[in-house]
Amino acid sequence: MLPFARVAILGLGLIGSSVARGVRASMPSVALSGYDADPQVRETARAIDLVDDVADTAGAAVIDADLVILCVPVGAMGGLAAEFADDLPAEAIVSDVGSCKASVVEALTAALPGATIVPAHPVAGTENSGPEAGFAALFHKRWCIVTPAPDAPQVAVERVSEFWRRLGADVEIMEPEHHDRVLAVTSHLPHLIAYTIVGTASDLEEVTSSEVIKYSAGGFRDFTRIAASDPTMWRDVFLANKDAVLDMLQRFSEDLSELQRAIRWGKGDQLFETFTRTRAVRRSIIEQGQDDARPDFGRSDH
Amino acid sequence: MLPFARVAILGLGLIGSSVARGVRASMPSVALSGYDADPQVRETARAIDLVDDVADTAGAAVIDADLVILCVPVGAMGGLAAEFADDLPAEAIVSDVGSCKASVVEALTAALPGATIVPAHPVAGTENSGPEAGFAALFHKRWCIVTPAPDAPQVAVERVSEFWRRLGADVEIMEPEHHDRVLAVTSHLPHLIAYTIVGTASDLEEVTSSEVIKYSAGGFRDFTRIAASDPTMWRDVFLANKDAVLDMLQRFSEDLSELQRAIRWGKGDQLFETFTRTRAVRRSIIEQGQDDARPDFGRSDH
Repeated sequence: MLPFARVAILGLGLIGSSVARGVRASMPSVALSGYDADPQVRETARAIDLVDDVADTAGAAVIDADLVILCVPVGAMGGLAAEFADDLPAEAIVSDVGSCKASVVEALTAALPGATIVPAHPVAGTENSGPEAGFAALFHKRWCIVTPAPDAPQVAVERVSEFWRRLGADVEIMEPEHHDRVLAVTSHLPHLIAYTIVGTASDLEEVTSSEVIKYSAGGFRDFTRIAASDPTMWRDVFLANKDAVLDMLQRFSEDLSELQRAIRWGKGDQLFETFTRTRAVRRSIIEQGQDDARPDFGRSDH
Repeated sequence: MLPFARVAILGLGLIGSSVARGVRASMPSVALSGYDADPQVRETARAIDLVDDVADTAGAAVIDADLVILCVPVGAMGGLAAEFADDLPAEAIVSDVGSCKASVVEALTAALPGATIVPAHPVAGTENSGPEAGFAALFHKRWCIVTPAPDAPQVAVERVSEFWRRLGADVEIMEPEHHDRVLAVTSHLPHLIAYTIVGTASDLEEVTSSEVIKYSAGGFRDFTRIAASDPTMWRDVFLANKDAVLDMLQRFSEDLSELQRAIRWGKGDQLFETFTRTRAVRRSIIEQGQDDARPDFGRSDH
């Protein structure tokens, strides 16, 4: 039996449109409605037949749903929830796909008093954005972290978990606060670092932008992929998960200073030791199927 | 006409073995000799028939060569050159593939007085190491930067350039010092940052290593690929290109502090502006064929 029969997807970008395609592929009998605040996105969604019904308001999209998933930047969750609060069926479960969870649990709980709220975070994505960037396999073999609000019934948590398993994900249940600490290091800090280094490289005087681009295969190009991610989404992540990000950043800066000092004083042994230790992490990620084992991610020219 | 007839490759790791395979593929009539300081690597090279003759000393490998390419960590260049100095034919050209060039020009010039020295740096690689990790297509459509010693004759520079073009690379001529500044930002700094963040993530108390690995698809896994690169090679790069790396690192740290401050004080507009600016760099890299245009580098699960 399917966990839900009528799913409303609010926000039809990369993740929302991937959820829609995943539902179509793995649960084809589910009735799908969708909404996006951007009229242009709604038009595209209709043109590519992304969902059964693209509504012109959030309220119209949720009115029949038994699952409502908010797929918008985390700073927009509360406002969007307020928009459809009056139209939300009493028995519907509200979920989302945001990259921070404590602030989202708080915003949804405040905007939807009495509703069943089971936030989730599929740890998956690409650097592309918009309704045409999504694809059904995005969540295959990726983890989806479910962070239920304190009063969410167990059966609701299980239904949302089953929904994600049907999209191909493995599910883990976690406290929202712990999620935010874990993701600060595995996702938020890496994005901040990547945005920074791409910015630094763009601002040099004696090395031209054209040189930076030409010789980017030395390692820099990897960072530019992450730094091409959606700016609105990431602005909201850093504002919403401020404390955890600042703490991780502080640790990173201390470690970087130590390596900086090792370089300045020519401490080769210390550098070698650090660089050796980090190899094992890569090996574990490959072994656990969390990355492509082929060299260089299997980039097309190899 | 081929630029060289008898090529000696000293150091049979990822790059050396890729050069060997590239020569076999694109210049099959060239006689290839090889040497590696590690007897195990020499044995593997013989077993996989990497070159025509695997010599047991560097001197024996170069004795008939008209091109000698040193493919060892930059800190080992001078010592290796001294080993074969007495056996180097007077008309041979000496080149290398090191990631820093000023220190290599200096070390080779000192060890090989009177020799024709034309260092080069193919900006290509993967996170794998050793004689079995190489492949002929590694240099296809990548840049190879040639940084001739001051007294190298133009014809020697042209022959080395043609050699790399035959391996599929585009060639650029550059001053060694400028090369080291450019690569400090497009390659050395990214590696240092990646090694640091992978180390930081391994040292957390309340987030376990197993969580870091499980949820690495949020961005972290990209950094682990770079941080799996050869530790000896990278130790030498940071020691040899110290000044340029420390300068770039200083700029990076300043930029990171600025973003840190923007997060602490909730300056969303500033974050949004920075994150928007960096998107354009990615676009240029794709347009110039320096990275895979498919989302997520075309990783296998998409």
